[in-house]
Amino acid sequence: MTDLLWPGDHRAGQIFSDAGYLAAMAQVENAWLGVLVDSGIAPASARADLTAAISAADVEAVAVAAEATGNPVPGVLELLRERTGGEPAHWLHRGLTSQDVVDTALMLCLRDALCRVRSELGTQVRALAALAKTYRDSPMLARTLTQPALPTTVGMKIAHWLTGLLDGADCVTALPQLSVQAGGAAGTMAAATELAGSPINAMSLSGRLATALGLADSPPWHTTRSVITRVGDALVTCCDAWSHIANDVAASSRPEIGELTEGRGGGSSTMPHKNNPVLSVLIRRAGLVAPSLAASLHTASAASVDERSDGGWHAEWAALRTLSRSAVAAAAQTTDLVAGLVIDTDRAAANLAAAGDLLGEQRAMTELTGQTARSDYTGAASHLIDAVLQRAHHHLMEAT
Amino acid sequence: MTDLLWPGDHRAGQIFSDAGYLAAMAQVENAWLGVLVDSGIAPASARADLTAAISAADVEAVAVAAEATGNPVPGVLELLRERTGGEPAHWLHRGLTSQDVVDTALMLCLRDALCRVRSELGTQVRALAALAKTYRDSPMLARTLTQPALPTTVGMKIAHWLTGLLDGADCVTALPQLSVQAGGAAGTMAAATELAGSPINAMSLSGRLATALGLADSPPWHTTRSVITRVGDALVTCCDAWSHIANDVAASSRPEIGELTEGRGGGSSTMPHKNNPVLSVLIRRAGLVAPSLAASLHTASAASVDERSDGGWHAEWAALRTLSRSAVAAAAQTTDLVAGLVIDTDRAAANLAAAGDLLGEQRAMTELTGQTARSDYTGAASHLIDAVLQRAHHHLMEAT
Amino acid sequence: MTDLLWPGDHRAGQIFSDAGYLAAMAQVENAWLGVLVDSGIAPASARADLTAAISAADVEAVAVAAEATGNPVPGVLELLRERTGGEPAHWLHRGLTSQDVVDTALMLCLRDALCRVRSELGTQVRALAALAKTYRDSPMLARTLTQPALPTTVGMKIAHWLTGLLDGADCVTALPQLSVQAGGAAGTMAAATELAGSPINAMSLSGRLATALGLADSPPWHTTRSVITRVGDALVTCCDAWSHIANDVAASSRPEIGELTEGRGGGSSTMPHKNNPVLSVLIRRAGLVAPSLAASLHTASAASVDERSDGGWHAEWAALRTLSRSAVAAAAQTTDLVAGLVIDTDRAAANLAAAGDLLGEQRAMTELTGQTARSDYTGAASHLIDAVLQRAHHHLMEAT
Amino acid sequence: MTDLLWPGDHRAGQIFSDAGYLAAMAQVENAWLGVLVDSGIAPASARADLTAAISAADVEAVAVAAEATGNPVPGVLELLRERTGGEPAHWLHRGLTSQDVVDTALMLCLRDALCRVRSELGTQVRALAALAKTYRDSPMLARTLTQPALPTTVGMKIAHWLTGLLDGADCVTALPQLSVQAGGAAGTMAAATELAGSPINAMSLSGRLATALGLADSPPWHTTRSVITRVGDALVTCCDAWSHIANDVAASSRPEIGELTEGRGGGSSTMPHKNNPVLSVLIRRAGLVAPSLAASLHTASAASVDERSDGGWHAEWAALRTLSRSAVAAAAQTTDLVAGLVIDTDRAAANLAAAGDLLGEQRAMTELTGQTARSDYTGAASHLIDAVLQRAHHHLMEAT
Repeated sequence: MTDLLWPGDHRAGQIFSDAGYLAAMAQVENAWLGVLVDSGIAPASARADLTAAISAADVEAVAVAAEATGNPVPGVLELLRERTGGEPAHWLHRGLTSQDVVDTALMLCLRDALCRVRSELGTQVRALAALAKTYRDSPMLARTLTQPALPTTVGMKIAHWLTGLLDGADCVTALPQLSVQAGGAAGTMAAATELAGSPINAMSLSGRLATALGLADSPPWHTTRSVITRVGDALVTCCDAWSHIANDVAASSRPEIGELTEGRGGGSSTMPHKNNPVLSVLIRRAGLVAPSLAASLHTASAASVDERSDGGWHAEWAALRTLSRSAVAAAAQTTDLVAGLVIDTDRAAANLAAAGDLLGEQRAMTELTGQTARSDYTGAASHLIDAVLQRAHHHLMEAT
Repeated sequence: MTDLLWPGDHRAGQIFSDAGYLAAMAQVENAWLGVLVDSGIAPASARADLTAAISAADVEAVAVAAEATGNPVPGVLELLRERTGGEPAHWLHRGLTSQDVVDTALMLCLRDALCRVRSELGTQVRALAALAKTYRDSPMLARTLTQPALPTTVGMKIAHWLTGLLDGADCVTALPQLSVQAGGAAGTMAAATELAGSPINAMSLSGRLATALGLADSPPWHTTRSVITRVGDALVTCCDAWSHIANDVAASSRPEIGELTEGRGGGSSTMPHKNNPVLSVLIRRAGLVAPSLAASLHTASAASVDERSDGGWHAEWAALRTLSRSAVAAAAQTTDLVAGLVIDTDRAAANLAAAGDLLGEQRAMTELTGQTARSDYTGAASHLIDAVLQRAHHHLMEAT
Repeated sequence: MTDLLWPGDHRAGQIFSDAGYLAAMAQVENAWLGVLVDSGIAPASARADLTAAISAADVEAVAVAAEATGNPVPGVLELLRERTGGEPAHWLHRGLTSQDVVDTALMLCLRDALCRVRSELGTQVRALAALAKTYRDSPMLARTLTQPALPTTVGMKIAHWLTGLLDGADCVTALPQLSVQAGGAAGTMAAATELAGSPINAMSLSGRLATALGLADSPPWHTTRSVITRVGDALVTCCDAWSHIANDVAASSRPEIGELTEGRGGGSSTMPHKNNPVLSVLIRRAGLVAPSLAASLHTASAASVDERSDGGWHAEWAALRTLSRSAVAAAAQTTDLVAGLVIDTDRAAANLAAAGDLLGEQRAMTELTGQTARSDYTGAASHLIDAVLQRAHHHLMEAT
Repeated sequence: MTDLLWPGDHRAGQIFSDAGYLAAMAQVENAWLGVLVDSGIAPASARADLTAAISAADVEAVAVAAEATGNPVPGVLELLRERTGGEPAHWLHRGLTSQDVVDTALMLCLRDALCRVRSELGTQVRALAALAKTYRDSPMLARTLTQPALPTTVGMKIAHWLTGLLDGADCVTALPQLSVQAGGAAGTMAAATELAGSPINAMSLSGRLATALGLADSPPWHTTRSVITRVGDALVTCCDAWSHIANDVAASSRPEIGELTEGRGGGSSTMPHKNNPVLSVLIRRAGLVAPSLAASLHTASAASVDERSDGGWHAEWAALRTLSRSAVAAAAQTTDLVAGLVIDTDRAAANLAAAGDLLGEQRAMTELTGQTARSDYTGAASHLIDAVLQRAHHHLMEAT
């Protein structure tokens, strides 16, 4: 279900959608049931494909039922028990608590979102690196505080965008591993210990769950929520970088400037001549909203108390989902923006020329040095571009 | 479609849901088409029931189409034109721009949300006023910075909650009227003036639209977004007040304190003895998240530029929707919380007694005055309760 | 002490400075001591000018001492008692609690800040109303989503800015009265009742305090913080409106557009030709930051619990101060921006002409109506300006 | 100058104070002048100790002057030139732009703040590790959603706090190196290239500056602000972790629970019996406010545009300073809180006993397994504590 009020939301497809999240919860319960059987705790007859027992059609019922207990897991369990019956119904969820399922399912959805973001970043890095090379020497006006400053090059501007992307990618790469959680009712693995016969055995169930889901293993993190906030911070850092590009394109696509434009702009419901920088506009939108969403995750984390927080935990889910989907949509839109970017080097050169005498600083410098002025005044731009290109190259090598 | 990750979201029903918003857009187009016909601009044959031409089943398609232009209106228009054909298709939306439709539809949805919030506040005020009266003299421990301070009464605590609600209601009441917008492409009513023959006539179209939709009339507000932020601020102020109640109930429902409990708490997926203060938890959650959402609306408003903002406008929609639905859900949950609240006056009295000697301050005062100490040390609590009850009474009289 | 990291902070002078806040606390204690004497509770010999007993030189010591109890009042009391001695030292603060003093002093500082904001808004409204009249018919390009839309007028753009200011002023006007608080340790007026002999007498002390300080009277609001959040919301709404103006000026002062410029821009530390729109830049800065500060106030309010909040209360003070001073500085900067604004009507007309054919919409309309096209296509702009001017006139009449 | 409205601010001493920041700017100018001399660009006679030419007494004048250009550097330069005269005055700042100085000085202040935070975290980790060992087996009630859940141990709770600290420390460790910036007016090193004779030489000046200041070298990052936001995110992550501890202590220090108390609480201005958890309250305060401050940094970063942002840049400074000082104060307060924590194991055991039958889950498990119930039901708590202790040990080894 695409969000009608967030144009571009469909770019995220089923990543962290309601249906996607429901499936993730079923996947967690399914993997855990498998672990119980595989480790000999539950009988072989308890094995069942729980993921097939629930579908997008159940979202509404589970969502409505979630209020009674404050989270969606009991509603999922009721459906799963009803539909599987017998030993599977008897054994599923044993040893877990709702929070284990909610949190581990969040990790599965985040994994998908981060995977997509990484992939889009890779594409963008490749595209911008190519542009930075191509336009390395194209003259352009550097503007500071909106006003003409000095000459620079198109390649230099693009290299700065690229730096932003690489910084965002570094944040994503630096994230801690996304981990399962199987702490049981109070995070002590008490039930699992009872089932598995010993603490060590209980801890190995968590390890098996991690393997089954392709996540990392971890002690329970019921009330230590930094994994959530760190993912949020990485996503908003990427949104910042995308917004930076979009700001420059939006400003530059004003026809009075006209240096950078979106290849295929958006139309108007009434003005036939319009060619709006729609991607830039929508990316900027994400940049305006994402910081508040990430802040909500911190506010929630800072409210941690007891062995399960009374509101702080619940405040995370929707904010994390919205931030993830917004980031994925902005990622995809930025990929398109970069791919379709039209660079008008003639306008860039003309605007630079029209800016008048910008070389007062250069004259002051040559007065100091007593040397002849260098023929252009773009300084180390080309070398700085090279430094960024090297970093981009390194990133792409690492990423593969 | 209920939000799976926001338990209690179904409380808001179709208020500002995607389907509700789509219907609101159709309602705006429909009313405008009616205005064009009624004012003799469009022929009678252009009249059609546009609201019947579109339904919740269209949400997905319109949502996906919205990215191309950056807003959902062109997608709505395409469907409406396709399905009505002929004169209605020829005349609909003439004189408007997408922003007129998006913004006026937002107002329709906000009206529903505010109406519901007002109604819930009324119920809550009535309920708390009754409780404040009933428990006016029930002794209770006042706690400051978590520690025992002085004696107070249950009624006094409830009167403070009530004050918060009345403050919230005042904010809602003080809101500017929700207005239509029919400014056309650049907010100048240029197309409408051309259609209606004169500026005055064009302005009267806006007035007729307002009447048809039951909203106020207003000059175009494309880039002056305070109506949006003010509604957001009022909603978050209500969430603050509800959260205040929920904080007290959550703290007090700890069995070691046990003075205030939710009548019917929520269970656990694994612990049979649990009786969780689920409503308080979910209300607190809203209180943690709402401030950031309202902040996003201000950030968006502060980004206003040109005659239609390049991102600031787009950033409002989803944040406003989420805040509105969260507020409505929290309103309904608080109504239930208050209605079901169980007050254990024995525990309250016992905790007060157990707090030991709290009357050092009183002794210091009588030392100063040389008078005998008053028999209780709850000061003007009863009179302060009366002041709040009068305010509540006044509010309820006004509201009817 | 001007904030080195907030250029323009000195515009706020002593409004809500640390020294100003310290003086406000002394003023509250002084007024209360006067009330105790005037009402016959304390002897005449207890009268003293407490405001003279403390000065800006004490800020550092009081600030350092504040950590021990979590608020600055005990440190103030210690100084006052030490410096006045005798009966004043014996009687001061009797019946109050620290929160009464902290909160009432906040109100005094807010009063000053709001008074200044109102005054700046008045000046701005007058200036913009004059500009809107002068430039009522000056042709200008309306831009939507950064792109040329339709013709409009300079006066119309300014009228939209003016609407934003009037909306901000409405928010300030709609604020509840700023009130004293004299609730005593638990907000029940217990100590005051003991001192004054009856609850009614105790309540009258609060009334006298209000009169003495020129604030409104109110029951204690220890845990109902909407007055704080509402002031915050009004201030950020004003910042939004100022930011809107600054955004337009910043964009328009790009030399490629060049329609609106700051009369006297700022220079550069190295580029002699620079003429930066410094005021716009600094106002925009406030618009970027203010929403988060106001959100903090809501987060704090939503954390209300018990009879004095364990952190929520403390979180308000600095955020409220920073928001207030930022708003005052932005107000003053906007007044200057508006006063010095240079409008280049030739560039505006030239840019409009250069935008090419914008009248496709008009042709579509005349096709519909069969009428001759109107000679200009600015619709009802002039009438809409009149509506705003009337509102401005009304505001200025009310304000005097 | 200690912030009167942020009790505990003096804990940060001169770290990122106004005086500290002014000194940092002078240090940057001084180091750059040294680089110019050392590299043979400026004559030996240009050498001067610029750091001695400016002092805390200049803060006010520089702060007031900052509005004219929008940043404090020109005011600093004026003072430095006036006070050094001659060759130093002639050569200082050559090749730099204001942003280079502002940003590099921010890095120097951040280095101090981070250094202090790291040190406090180390002390806290050591203290909590000791407590987790000591109280490894002390029985305690695990509470979820405020209600009794299952038995756990004091050591387990403390181990969770410890995990939060280690997560925070990981964020700090993962930060990118703090780098100088010497990009010149447009970030191209144009002036430096002119002075140094070649781009390579210009880049080596940046490297020398880095060495002189003990920072990393980096290409200019005028508009790629992730270093700022990443530091902000790390600091708020630490504040979250400290707040988590403070929340538990505040809740637990309620006398009805009484398991954890601050050794030496704060008093009241009127109630002699009070013993307030002041440190917890003040730490919680930081946790409520920090997320908004970090969000402001992202909002600012996302506003990056051109070669120097028109407001986004300026919005960072004060928010970063306030967040840094708040975090340092909260760090120090948490160190004290942890050092002075009083753990009442008798109350903990008594509360656990009073919670009644919590072992329904255990019985359900043994019914499943057919085994005898384990003698206690704290599961793998002891093993999980060990895992955290190992991580703490590893952290402390790395940190030395």
